[in-house]
Amino acid sequence: MKTTTFKIEGMNCDACANTIKKLVEKEPGVRVAEVSFDEGSARVLYDPQSIEEERLVDTIQKPGFRVVARD
Amino acid sequence: MKTTTFKIEGMNCDACANTIKKLVEKEPGVRVAEVSFDEGSARVLYDPQSIEEERLVDTIQKPGFRVVARD
Repeated sequence: MKTTTFKIEGMNCDACANTIKKLVEKEPGVRVAEVSFDEGSARVLYDPQSIEEERLVDTIQKPGFRVVARD
Repeated sequence: MKTTTFKIEGMNCDACANTIKKLVEKEPGVRVAEVSFDEGSARVLYDPQSIEEERLVDTIQKPGFRVVARD
């Protein structure tokens, strides 16, 4: 399992954060996503054998949010 | 082309509405989606030959919003 933290722009409220959490947690291979509106970040625990980091970025960005950094 | 209006619960702000708009407009067969946070609704213009109404409901609900009525 691997954890990646994504810095995200475009969240406007806690509901936005929850939207991202639910979208990411529906992806296969993702165990948990902690998304914080206050910090503008998502910390995702996932199996890198099942899903690539790039796919996580796509999932976050699909509704219009922007991933501006990751580590 | 067909227009369906969905009543949606769970939107918290304009960014939530924009999130739904972008997700729905990425679906094949959808021409335009007008989503209003104030009204709690989405009006979607789409080609019913390309996408079923049920699929639109799934798309709206995937991040956790709830479709409570449609016409």
